[in-house]
Amino acid sequence: ENAHQLQSQKDTVTQKLQETETRNAELEAQLVELEQRLESSQVEQEAFRKSLRSLLQLLDGKIFELTELRDSLAKLIEGGGS
Amino acid sequence: ENAHQLQSQKDTVTQKLQETETRNAELEAQLVELEQRLESSQVEQEAFRKSLRSLLQLLDGKIFELTELRDSLAKLIEGGGS
Amino acid sequence: ENAHQLQSQKDTVTQKLQETETRNAELEAQLVELEQRLESSQVEQEAFRKSLRSLLQLLDGKIFELTELRDSLAKLIEGGGS
Amino acid sequence: ENAHQLQSQKDTVTQKLQETETRNAELEAQLVELEQRLESSQVEQEAFRKSLRSLLQLLDGKIFELTELRDSLAKLIEGGGS
Repeated sequence: ENAHQLQSQKDTVTQKLQETETRNAELEAQLVELEQRLESSQVEQEAFRKSLRSLLQLLDGKIFELTELRDSLAKLIEGGGS
Repeated sequence: ENAHQLQSQKDTVTQKLQETETRNAELEAQLVELEQRLESSQVEQEAFRKSLRSLLQLLDGKIFELTELRDSLAKLIEGGGS
Repeated sequence: ENAHQLQSQKDTVTQKLQETETRNAELEAQLVELEQRLESSQVEQEAFRKSLRSLLQLLDGKIFELTELRDSLAKLIEGGGS
Repeated sequence: ENAHQLQSQKDTVTQKLQETETRNAELEAQLVELEQRLESSQVEQEAFRKSLRSLLQLLDGKIFELTELRDSLAKLIEGGGS
């Protein structure tokens, strides 16, 4: 009688364990996937920021060239023919 | 004898179940944290992009104003005193 | 006989004098006109140069504003969300 | 008596003619000088305007390059990693 009851309890717990292990495997898969998404997002953001830095350098160049043009205009106005 | 063995097996499985449930709770906490980090990163990125869009509009304005200045200079050169 | 000759010479010189005075008046009129054109050209050139100086100041303003925009972009890139 | 008077009148007119011719030569010299200044001023102004046209073309180039940079920024913002 007692053995029968114990066998039944053991079966229930074993069943519960299997379900929990399955859930565990699912959670681990989700974690791996999320970690990959986060890392991929960070790689993308770093590439984005790098492209922005290149544009910033181009903008610096354009501002420098506009300033040279401005200086040429100033010299021309002050030194140009009377 | 059999009951004793069953009890021992049941205890082992119960022990394993508890460990697995603990691990499960940890994984769920990690998932929640990662999901929050991912969402927070997306909110930040959207704010970043929004600020960049504002800068782009400012740049559009500056280019428009430089073009107006360029047109004024062109008119001045062609129509200015002989 | 001598008086007749002298009268003729005097007439010739008087005629030459009138022609020379007429030419003189023409030259003075041309001079006045040229001086007015030169002065008018200088006034025009000064107005031209003044307009160019205004454009130069506008250009200075635009370069300053582009530099501010560039600084905003630099801050955004370095401080923006990771 | 008459001959003496005529001689005196002739001398006076001849004197006046010489003065007028001298003045005439001065006026012609002034005219030549003014014409040269006016022409030189026009040459200078044309060179000035030509230099301004070169600057205008440079400015056109800079505005074009800023517009390209603006387009690159727009593409980056809209297409960049999420």
